Amino acid sequence: MSLQPILIAGEWRQARNPVDSFTAFNPATKSPLEDRYPVSGMEDVQSALVAAQAAVAALCTVSPGTIAGFLRKFAQNIEDRAEALVEMANLETALPVEPRLRSVELPRTTDQLRQAATAVCDRSWCHATIDTKANIRSLYGPLGGPVVVFGPNNFPFACNSAAGGDFVAAIAAGNPIIAKANTGHPCTTKLLAQAAFDAVRVSGLPGGMVQLLYRTPPDVGFALVSHPLTGATGFTGSKSAGLALKAAADKAGKLIYLEMSSVNPVFVLPGALEERLTEVAGELYASCSLGAGQFCTNPGLVIVQEGGQSEAFLAEARCHFAENPGGTLLGPQGPTGIADALRILRQNGAEIITGGEELDTPGYAFANTLLRVSGDAFLADPEALQTEAYGTVSLVVCARDAGQMGEIAAALEGSLTGCIYSHSEGNDDPLYDRIEPVLREKVGRLLNDKMPTGVAISSAMNHGGPYPATGHPGFTGLGIPASLLRFTALHSYDNVRPYRLPPNLQDKNPTGSMWRFIDLEWTRRYL
Amino acid sequence: MSLQPILIAGEWRQARNPVDSFTAFNPATKSPLEDRYPVSGMEDVQSALVAAQAAVAALCTVSPGTIAGFLRKFAQNIEDRAEALVEMANLETALPVEPRLRSVELPRTTDQLRQAATAVCDRSWCHATIDTKANIRSLYGPLGGPVVVFGPNNFPFACNSAAGGDFVAAIAAGNPIIAKANTGHPCTTKLLAQAAFDAVRVSGLPGGMVQLLYRTPPDVGFALVSHPLTGATGFTGSKSAGLALKAAADKAGKLIYLEMSSVNPVFVLPGALEERLTEVAGELYASCSLGAGQFCTNPGLVIVQEGGQSEAFLAEARCHFAENPGGTLLGPQGPTGIADALRILRQNGAEIITGGEELDTPGYAFANTLLRVSGDAFLADPEALQTEAYGTVSLVVCARDAGQMGEIAAALEGSLTGCIYSHSEGNDDPLYDRIEPVLREKVGRLLNDKMPTGVAISSAMNHGGPYPATGHPGFTGLGIPASLLRFTALHSYDNVRPYRLPPNLQDKNPTGSMWRFIDLEWTRRYL
Repeated sequence: MSLQPILIAGEWRQARNPVDSFTAFNPATKSPLEDRYPVSGMEDVQSALVAAQAAVAALCTVSPGTIAGFLRKFAQNIEDRAEALVEMANLETALPVEPRLRSVELPRTTDQLRQAATAVCDRSWCHATIDTKANIRSLYGPLGGPVVVFGPNNFPFACNSAAGGDFVAAIAAGNPIIAKANTGHPCTTKLLAQAAFDAVRVSGLPGGMVQLLYRTPPDVGFALVSHPLTGATGFTGSKSAGLALKAAADKAGKLIYLEMSSVNPVFVLPGALEERLTEVAGELYASCSLGAGQFCTNPGLVIVQEGGQSEAFLAEARCHFAENPGGTLLGPQGPTGIADALRILRQNGAEIITGGEELDTPGYAFANTLLRVSGDAFLADPEALQTEAYGTVSLVVCARDAGQMGEIAAALEGSLTGCIYSHSEGNDDPLYDRIEPVLREKVGRLLNDKMPTGVAISSAMNHGGPYPATGHPGFTGLGIPASLLRFTALHSYDNVRPYRLPPNLQDKNPTGSMWRFIDLEWTRRYL
Repeated sequence: MSLQPILIAGEWRQARNPVDSFTAFNPATKSPLEDRYPVSGMEDVQSALVAAQAAVAALCTVSPGTIAGFLRKFAQNIEDRAEALVEMANLETALPVEPRLRSVELPRTTDQLRQAATAVCDRSWCHATIDTKANIRSLYGPLGGPVVVFGPNNFPFACNSAAGGDFVAAIAAGNPIIAKANTGHPCTTKLLAQAAFDAVRVSGLPGGMVQLLYRTPPDVGFALVSHPLTGATGFTGSKSAGLALKAAADKAGKLIYLEMSSVNPVFVLPGALEERLTEVAGELYASCSLGAGQFCTNPGLVIVQEGGQSEAFLAEARCHFAENPGGTLLGPQGPTGIADALRILRQNGAEIITGGEELDTPGYAFANTLLRVSGDAFLADPEALQTEAYGTVSLVVCARDAGQMGEIAAALEGSLTGCIYSHSEGNDDPLYDRIEPVLREKVGRLLNDKMPTGVAISSAMNHGGPYPATGHPGFTGLGIPASLLRFTALHSYDNVRPYRLPPNLQDKNPTGSMWRFIDLEWTRRYL
């Protein structure tokens, strides 16, 4: 049987000397799907890099309007092919067709593409800066090499390496991309890459603008992210895979943006428990069980102060976790990964309140699991007790008192998000003021009275955070225009003749409405 | 004899169990200076980190006005102590008192402090972003840990770890710093740290805001940059030391910004040679010999097209290099480092046109050195032929033709700067258009008709560039406000109650004139 084609240099073709091949699985039935995909070796990687380099050169003369046109056409192609995409994503991930895939994730994906198109046309994202006195001008420009995107398994559309957040940001910033499919949903990725590539063709963009590989052995992946021709890498996935790629990229001085593990601590202060523990417990379960708990912003750690209210909260949360069935997980590593994480948590003093077992269902599934641990035990080994369980699992830490809540905050690792629920009338404010400054430094996004799932594509979003949640706390992976800045280099022009300046830095405002930072003032004026 | 005191936790005190001690040298006489300085072990590093952590906590309630007041008071202290500073810097570095130290570098240093103070009061640097619809707000905030600064040997004031660009950026962004003195000028650094600390005290800032160590063994340095309490590191210095620190920081997921080697290519196109080769040769020498060639933006590589004009250019440049005496170098490693670099260049086909020998002078000195190499030889081993010689040394590459000039551009490593001299009437434009896109990707700052030395402290400056010039092409080490962004984390606030938001993100514009990005518009309005 022939293997599915890869997309290299503007051509769908067979992999050259593939190292191996693989199939995806239907997580709802645990049975392999029909198509086989190649595991590419260095030959395909080299071809992709050479084609990407040609695309980089060609992009020098491509207008923002052409890039924006591509992004919009791609969004349209996705909508035109929505049924096939939704069907395939459901087959490969078992995520529900409705509302998740068709009505939430697919529109989110096309919305992201269109927001990026708007940002590209607006041009303000590049922070064009002009110092008229010194005659020095600068902006953020493309990297001069392709962005390699490794997409995660949990958002087959919105984080897909051939259509999602990293893809959109890299392309909008003017870079070609090389997508490495998540091996959980290769066909969904192929369909998206087809929709992208068809848009590339009608837009007149270079053939190497969007390329697709399905899988590489680890050493080939390391060679790809550290290759002299590579501009940067965007990776979303497990901490172990992310750290291995990071080590390779770092050693070569190559940029890599990572989104790895995150337990997303939620502090529920005494006044909030007193006032509305039932609601908070319901919100916790609703957030924790979204996507069968396989969200990067899943609330995996809850910190309360022990006492009567916290016991009532645990009992209430237990009901939700116990009464609802566990969702289907994304693949065979789902149940084993959760079991491994629970083992570590239990070895370090956590007790299971409900759940804890793989479910005997046709698909991959694990019982919703709620655990508890004392503040003392947590502080004895905070690293082990922040082990991420990728599923509907949450660990409640019962702190002895307010002081210990603060110590727990100080012992947290970097996370994408941190929440504080507090009394609505301000009764908890002294404790809030103690915890917030500590938590603030540990998380990318700080929330009040709200669970962390549901990441808005907002200009003020930070879907990022301190290590090990990501590799750099200054960048967001989602949110437009800020997410574009990851895939840029700062380009300064000193005494460059006016007609040679990029249009965004010439005296004339190129759109008439682009925001530029001229002599320390943001303005839309001409010079 | 007792050792010079270090500054830890708001106290000038002896190092605890120092590993060793050292003295500085007077480069003009090669003789050791009197004072001895401690080489600190982990005990001092631990103390510094603990004090810095306390400073981080205290800074949460410190106003921008206090930080700005500190920066201004520090600038004033430097001016008040200018004579002692200039005298000591001259003794430790042999850089001339006039104009360099007193009239150029010292005012540049105080100007940088005052520009930063202005940026701190203005507040616009933090890119406060508000999405009113989603009620999400973000800004760049401090790192939650101190910034460790390793300063270079070549700018004892303007890049000093206790007063220079990295210091200023880190403090202005709200972080405490731990200065690691350059061991070439420990007393200058001590005097600056005294001036800084005296300003810390009168400003009411925490004692751990500015701390000073003189030297650490390599393993202690690695432990410092990778320590859990460290926020980030700013390093300026050699590639070997920088890469070793980077490896340690990367492995721990800690931020490190590096400014390492850079040959700063200068392309002189045929029309420019035809039109004004005499001027260009003069400008090359003037730029190359600044600070005895020990500038990070020193033009170390010149690319011309071979022919009669290029020979005349070489002859003209040769006169300048040969007729002028070599300046005094910063230390004993000056002449040996240049000799080592020349050995590599010559082994790979470069010929010395003039210079090439250490000078027999009372101080450390090396003859001004001009070399040439063919384009073919350069392309045979471009890495070796981009070996940086840290002194008044420039290698002229004579390309066979315009095509080969393009190939040479493509073979360049990342540099801080890249210059193109071309005919004033546009005769070289076709060749410019061929080289510029290639060079653009290789450098942080692109210049026309101008040598790269003389780095303006401008809002549009990029004193940065692709690896190995730095570790991240998206950040500048100089230029305010942009340089502050290196030492920040992106902080997003989602649904946070209005009175709990930082003032920069509340509805009310905190200064009435701060620029904020509200609903995708830059504005100074209230919400």
